[in-house]
Amino acid sequence: MAKLSMIWGLVLVVGATAWVANAQSSGLPQLDQNEWWGSQVLLKDSATLQSRKTIKPFHVTFSQEMIDYLKRRISNHRSYVPPLEGTAFEYGFNPDQIGTWADYWVNEYNFTTGESVLNQFPQYKTNVQGLDMHFIWVKPEVPDGVTSVPLLLLHGFPGSIREFFEAIPLLTTPTNGLVFEVIVPSLPGYGFSDGAVRPGMGPAQIAVILKNLMKKIGHQKFYIQGGDWGSVIGRAIATLYQDDVLGFHSTALTVFNSCAEILNLLGGYIATLQVEIHQYNRTALTNIAEETGYVHLQATKPDSVGISLSDSPIGLLTYVLEKFSTWTHPSNRLRQDGGLFNHFTREQMIDNLMIYWMTNSMTTAMRLYAEYFSRAHRGLGLDEHPTKVPVWNIKAPNDLFPQPLNKMKFLNVVGVTVLNDGGHFLALELPEAFAADVFKAVEAFKKFHANRRTDL
Amino acid sequence: MAKLSMIWGLVLVVGATAWVANAQSSGLPQLDQNEWWGSQVLLKDSATLQSRKTIKPFHVTFSQEMIDYLKRRISNHRSYVPPLEGTAFEYGFNPDQIGTWADYWVNEYNFTTGESVLNQFPQYKTNVQGLDMHFIWVKPEVPDGVTSVPLLLLHGFPGSIREFFEAIPLLTTPTNGLVFEVIVPSLPGYGFSDGAVRPGMGPAQIAVILKNLMKKIGHQKFYIQGGDWGSVIGRAIATLYQDDVLGFHSTALTVFNSCAEILNLLGGYIATLQVEIHQYNRTALTNIAEETGYVHLQATKPDSVGISLSDSPIGLLTYVLEKFSTWTHPSNRLRQDGGLFNHFTREQMIDNLMIYWMTNSMTTAMRLYAEYFSRAHRGLGLDEHPTKVPVWNIKAPNDLFPQPLNKMKFLNVVGVTVLNDGGHFLALELPEAFAADVFKAVEAFKKFHANRRTDL
Repeated sequence: MAKLSMIWGLVLVVGATAWVANAQSSGLPQLDQNEWWGSQVLLKDSATLQSRKTIKPFHVTFSQEMIDYLKRRISNHRSYVPPLEGTAFEYGFNPDQIGTWADYWVNEYNFTTGESVLNQFPQYKTNVQGLDMHFIWVKPEVPDGVTSVPLLLLHGFPGSIREFFEAIPLLTTPTNGLVFEVIVPSLPGYGFSDGAVRPGMGPAQIAVILKNLMKKIGHQKFYIQGGDWGSVIGRAIATLYQDDVLGFHSTALTVFNSCAEILNLLGGYIATLQVEIHQYNRTALTNIAEETGYVHLQATKPDSVGISLSDSPIGLLTYVLEKFSTWTHPSNRLRQDGGLFNHFTREQMIDNLMIYWMTNSMTTAMRLYAEYFSRAHRGLGLDEHPTKVPVWNIKAPNDLFPQPLNKMKFLNVVGVTVLNDGGHFLALELPEAFAADVFKAVEAFKKFHANRRTDL
Repeated sequence: MAKLSMIWGLVLVVGATAWVANAQSSGLPQLDQNEWWGSQVLLKDSATLQSRKTIKPFHVTFSQEMIDYLKRRISNHRSYVPPLEGTAFEYGFNPDQIGTWADYWVNEYNFTTGESVLNQFPQYKTNVQGLDMHFIWVKPEVPDGVTSVPLLLLHGFPGSIREFFEAIPLLTTPTNGLVFEVIVPSLPGYGFSDGAVRPGMGPAQIAVILKNLMKKIGHQKFYIQGGDWGSVIGRAIATLYQDDVLGFHSTALTVFNSCAEILNLLGGYIATLQVEIHQYNRTALTNIAEETGYVHLQATKPDSVGISLSDSPIGLLTYVLEKFSTWTHPSNRLRQDGGLFNHFTREQMIDNLMIYWMTNSMTTAMRLYAEYFSRAHRGLGLDEHPTKVPVWNIKAPNDLFPQPLNKMKFLNVVGVTVLNDGGHFLALELPEAFAADVFKAVEAFKKFHANRRTDL
């Protein structure tokens, strides 16, 4: 085995050389700052467009019709083949757990409460580049001696704005003279935000949209927090608009470029290249293949699978909750109930599903994978460009994949927090630790900028 | 680019050396020839078991209840997001095509006819190793001067026994003094055959089951035809039982072992290593990543995705028909209707879906991927062992993947047919060409054996 590893090492080094030689550094891509992603009809209807461009309050409504239909669908689900004997979540969501969740969703989940939960923060919609963008926007009270700064919170898949509901009250409460004005958009194609009507809207293009949204509501400069897609889109914003992003706090400060891929690959063999060894007792590759089938499928045939999840609430539930189970702790695969009840409330899980279900947005959400893993998006070469935006990395030990902090990309790493607990959905699972770390990071970002000014 | 390719070539050659060095040849794996895959309850209930071990005629019944429920489900489908502008099947099944198919399935498909189509051949069930195995068994009339030989026909995913319905009458009609007694099982976990109740039933274990089934119905020696899973399972039978398989006819005489993987990989760069260049104007890797998302997901989380397809007939339809579209001709991805109507009848497509739907077998069908791509199955090293069984390779030019004929595995290649037309589902698409080639191959297999006897 040692010999084999050495030969593999050689293979990878040669490969790395070839790959790096192939990578070319040129200027940042010039993206159309007003690219139109909506329908041509809307573009030509200036009265409607003008109206939709205004910023309007938005409320979520659970119509009785929607609730009745959903309940019928769930109750009327087909019987399922039992799980293979002796297995829990190893083959995916354990079919034996469907009954409990279906019963809860139909008979115990309080739809009235769920609706108010989704309406507990001020929400708005406004049309940006053809898409009606939905966002939560909480402007905190700012007592004397307290500084308020804008913070863009970006969710991931298969999450939603719901990921941040426990953290928002903490972030909007003044702490040590600092408080956040939080802006939490539904990503385009997710939940209450429109999806693009034509191909090509990847993370770089979404970065343009979100930057325009922030400008529209009056913020030229702002902080960003994001994990999962939020980290990919956050780093796109932090790369394209380096002067506007004041700081970027993320669970994943990795990149997807030539060098990083080699490093990730080698990291599968030599874990310390990627992670503090005390933190992870496994290598990346072991889990990566096992846990990325959904990425592969969604990146290639999002519509084929999105359709079934939009037509079956139980299918949606099993597909999504499997992720909340395994990504929160890999050992949850061995638990009969997927360990879900140890980390989340049932309400949290169903609130999130309600957003996907009522907006019928799973297909447009999945298309983001296809746009990201496209040649066109990769051709932009965004990740070949470093960013000077100060960053702070928070690492949760149970997150499924080690996400190596890439110091070639992120030139100003202001701090790293290594937690003793927590998984992929950190804001939802450990809101206090999450919010405290955001405060800490932004304090550090402010010091970073203050010192820079002194340096001049 | 030339330089890059050379470096990559070097990488692959070094990698190949390492990989081959790692491969160890040892004896054929000793599989339990009576491994029990059914429930423990059945094992202990000897009266029931004895009864189920007998070979009983079987008929498909479309109950009115099932039909009504299915129609309700289809008609009641949710609205779908439109396809991205200017796209057809590039993001998966084109959502604009759902309406046509849903309407056909509910209003035009003749369920009575469909039921008789599925009952047009004699069918049986018998319990083998704990699983009720379903199979079509057509014993032809054998006039004087005609030789009848047994032929095991093996289907794939997302197909079924339905793949062979047009070919069966041709194969069971005497031609040049030869006729086939055909045995067409539903693979375990597919359609009307039980799935295993515990993990571990991969192609090797299915090979044992099918061999036992053939013996049970009186055939010690037989021919095999199979593509897709049928080729994987067929080559497992042809490896484990080399004296019993008289010949193996397949669209895919490739293997999944250390050498072959390197060759496949190199074949992505140097196509002539794999295929006649006049036949394919593309390389393997281009399509492989784009078209194997479903493999990746089904090999890792079959239950998570199987559940939604079992709960949504439209989800099932889109997921399955996308495969029939793209695998039949890669250019079908660019056709608004996926080109399905150019190759198949609507009845054929829905008959096949009816089998998955009425038996609720998508989840157990998908689990085969998980068992095949498991360490345990790979550890058997079946594909490291050559087989002396004579083989005949039929190549259809439009099949999605070039399937290189592996001459290290198959020591006796009796013939190769290169067609000018046809795709992955050859028996269904071109039954005449398919059946004619099977006759031709078996004639050659018979000569092969006759010559060998002379040699002795």
